[in-house]
Amino acid sequence: MAIPRVRSAVRVANCLPAERLAISLSNTPSFDHERHALRGLRRASTVSKDSNGRRKERVVILGSGWAGYGFARSLDPNKFERIMISPRSYFVFTPLLAGTAVGTLEFRAVLEPVRRLGLDQFHQGWADDIDFARKTIRVEANTSDDLASRTRLAMKHSPDGAEKGATFDVEYDKLVIAVGSYSQTFGIEGVREHANFLRDVGDARKIRQKVLQNFEKAALPITTDEERKRLLHFAIVGGGPTGIEYAAELHDLIRDDLTKTYPNLMEFVSITVYDVAPKVLPMFDKKLADYAMDRFKREGIQVKTEHHLTRIRPDEECEGCLKLKITEYGDEEVGAGIVVWSTGLMQNPLVQKLESKTFKMPSSDSKMQLQKHAKTGGIVTDANLRVHMVPNPATSKSSPDPESNAALLPDVYGIGDCTVISGVGLPATAQVASQQATHLAKRLNKGDIDKKPFKFRNLGTMTYLGNWTAIHQSSADELKGWMAWVLWRTAYLTRSMSIRNKITVPFYWAISWIFGRDISRF
Amino acid sequence: MAIPRVRSAVRVANCLPAERLAISLSNTPSFDHERHALRGLRRASTVSKDSNGRRKERVVILGSGWAGYGFARSLDPNKFERIMISPRSYFVFTPLLAGTAVGTLEFRAVLEPVRRLGLDQFHQGWADDIDFARKTIRVEANTSDDLASRTRLAMKHSPDGAEKGATFDVEYDKLVIAVGSYSQTFGIEGVREHANFLRDVGDARKIRQKVLQNFEKAALPITTDEERKRLLHFAIVGGGPTGIEYAAELHDLIRDDLTKTYPNLMEFVSITVYDVAPKVLPMFDKKLADYAMDRFKREGIQVKTEHHLTRIRPDEECEGCLKLKITEYGDEEVGAGIVVWSTGLMQNPLVQKLESKTFKMPSSDSKMQLQKHAKTGGIVTDANLRVHMVPNPATSKSSPDPESNAALLPDVYGIGDCTVISGVGLPATAQVASQQATHLAKRLNKGDIDKKPFKFRNLGTMTYLGNWTAIHQSSADELKGWMAWVLWRTAYLTRSMSIRNKITVPFYWAISWIFGRDISRF
Repeated sequence: MAIPRVRSAVRVANCLPAERLAISLSNTPSFDHERHALRGLRRASTVSKDSNGRRKERVVILGSGWAGYGFARSLDPNKFERIMISPRSYFVFTPLLAGTAVGTLEFRAVLEPVRRLGLDQFHQGWADDIDFARKTIRVEANTSDDLASRTRLAMKHSPDGAEKGATFDVEYDKLVIAVGSYSQTFGIEGVREHANFLRDVGDARKIRQKVLQNFEKAALPITTDEERKRLLHFAIVGGGPTGIEYAAELHDLIRDDLTKTYPNLMEFVSITVYDVAPKVLPMFDKKLADYAMDRFKREGIQVKTEHHLTRIRPDEECEGCLKLKITEYGDEEVGAGIVVWSTGLMQNPLVQKLESKTFKMPSSDSKMQLQKHAKTGGIVTDANLRVHMVPNPATSKSSPDPESNAALLPDVYGIGDCTVISGVGLPATAQVASQQATHLAKRLNKGDIDKKPFKFRNLGTMTYLGNWTAIHQSSADELKGWMAWVLWRTAYLTRSMSIRNKITVPFYWAISWIFGRDISRF
Repeated sequence: MAIPRVRSAVRVANCLPAERLAISLSNTPSFDHERHALRGLRRASTVSKDSNGRRKERVVILGSGWAGYGFARSLDPNKFERIMISPRSYFVFTPLLAGTAVGTLEFRAVLEPVRRLGLDQFHQGWADDIDFARKTIRVEANTSDDLASRTRLAMKHSPDGAEKGATFDVEYDKLVIAVGSYSQTFGIEGVREHANFLRDVGDARKIRQKVLQNFEKAALPITTDEERKRLLHFAIVGGGPTGIEYAAELHDLIRDDLTKTYPNLMEFVSITVYDVAPKVLPMFDKKLADYAMDRFKREGIQVKTEHHLTRIRPDEECEGCLKLKITEYGDEEVGAGIVVWSTGLMQNPLVQKLESKTFKMPSSDSKMQLQKHAKTGGIVTDANLRVHMVPNPATSKSSPDPESNAALLPDVYGIGDCTVISGVGLPATAQVASQQATHLAKRLNKGDIDKKPFKFRNLGTMTYLGNWTAIHQSSADELKGWMAWVLWRTAYLTRSMSIRNKITVPFYWAISWIFGRDISRF
């Protein structure tokens, strides 16, 4: 069943528990116990009890996004001890992020601090490794909020030896993997260094500052008109809802507010959305997507489909400007003041690490690994959101089809962007993550996880188009224009927010409507 | 009257205007016209006309603080062209800054963007030099908001050759110098590098982040109790109103909010205010200051008077902690997680530069310089806020008493922290700056600047003490406790704010009161 070398390793494992761990983790940097002991490693091991004095099951949640936060919020604290591990200490209400990036909303109005959930424990840090056999997570502490508030690119945990935080172990009875995804730069030169992302609140803040800063630079008497054109060309790469909404919000900001403060600069302003696909907003049907394009055309926002960006570099002739190389334009580069990157996701490095390692469960003799989804690289789960494991192909003689050999990894669940339900193709959206979170929490609360599979209920898709209009599409109906905008606002108000933000969000909408968007920078 | 060498210089000056300028500025780096022409230097010279088609007088305002912003706000735009030059693009309502540093208020609720004043021009930059004879200001552009939003220390324009922004010239008919002051570190080792200041909104943001970050660090299971004590010791240096109010607000935050999120950490928290003087709050009479100290004692905030801090350095045993050397404790250093520095002002480098140079006005033969106030180093003005100039002592044979030789520098006015009214000792406070600003604007609007001297009307001093109490003292009455707190809040609400912030500030007070202060970090 296994090749001789491995067999002997397994034999050693049976007598020496400590070594067994080292062996089972041989594909990854092993948990170096001595080193960590020297650094003051301690286990987080208080015991939480329910009202009858019984020890509560400890549920550890990795991540504080739509999946992780949503799950933690719905899990019954009377039945379970809730422990969350996430590098950032808050949940971001992502659909309103574009609004904060232009000052319509206050940043905090789209945040929910994790500490408010009243969890048993919250550890600000990255899950660095998981030992499924010993039910233990190695956590690397993160206390840099600045780092945590930005879009995650594949930089952290890269092999370039970046400084690591202190580490400690956390044990679980049940584990929920909800670590989400990272942004994908497709290896395009300069994207990582010069583009702005829009997935977290630190990103929104940076974009907002840069846009206003570019207007201020353009307003200086020493700036030439050619420089003004470049500084005030706002390029957005990616024609999905995030890119389109940001273009719309930016256009609102410029037309409603900046036009009053910088009237002489308006002639230099332009907004362009670039996408490689033949059409933007692919999740909407043609009628609605055409309506969106028609609106954009009327507002003067350019949409360039089938355009391939291949490089971003600083413009040496214009401080603070960028030059974009686009295949379709040949050698001539396009000048821009800012490039907002909103296309593509990739797997979290933790997911990649977990999928590449083999482990041995105490109940079985064979070496196992997580089942990896061939196309997306996500962790495969069953319809009940339980994580699949498959025999390690290198050591297994059985059928090469992983699906037929898949077993359940005991007490490990996966939800959100980092997972794929076996045989079901759901998009990596907030709506899916959020519904999975609620489903899993309900099932654990009721103790019927094996009885009810998860079913996605498509509530429709919405995108704000600027100037009080939006589009909305669901299986039942389609809406566009002002009515869709009303739906867009009310839907987001009623969903997944604290009462505090249910009050502050409409308050800020009203203030921005009456007095204009906030244009102060700091 | 003048020594021969200078006399010949003056003679040259009479024939060659370009060289005259270079000579008149010989004490400072001269305006290098060629270099700036190469960098695309242009003069900001649009012409603004009043309703009768006459060219309006151009008033250039340096600074956007209590003095500069207050003046620009009150100056009649129908009579004057208003141009402001300031490194930051907003006014900060400083009395509420301590509240933003603990999350009671949103940062933007204490800002007023300068662009909202509808000025004829706003240039974001530093006044780098002034040529009084040619009525021209050399401006160095600043487009880094991050830099502008922090307390200004004597770093910018230091002779260490820091990179300079592009420069351009602005001409004035009338000039108002309102550049304020910098923070004074008294050359104490480590203050500049490791202390936090609290004079601008970027400072408040940094303090807020650090305080919450320290709690998060202390909450990690790997942190020892000794480290927790250090991380959660909050030291404030300076027992003036700012230091005391920050201590009070911080105590409110901890007692009202953080005690719920980090109940196990409360035993490690301590707050200490250090001051070199024998008593804090020197502007209040003994009864009120004693009341304040009594309140602090009851809340557990320590006040250490007659304590001299001589060094701040990083604590090598505790990441993120500091060690304070205090003369009174000998070799034993005090550990702290954060040091908030709120003591001492020094003159703006521009003021020092202007005071050290000589110039020759077209109307006179003798070399002049600004009159410098002996004790504070401020620019001396007459009672009507017009800037004094005196003959250069090196070239003048007249009496050594500058006062008797003081003349008015035509069309140049000075208000706020950077100025001193000849023979009148007013404190460097927002109240003085604000009243001077309004007075000067009114006089210029009416054209009776020479008729009415400025008179300071003491409206009293207020300090928030935490837990819904404050103290208030004026010539007419004294108030303490809850009533003073009500007065404190209403006074600041009704003063010097936009309607927008008159609405948002009480809204945020209410939200914080109902739901607790905001503890999200990013």
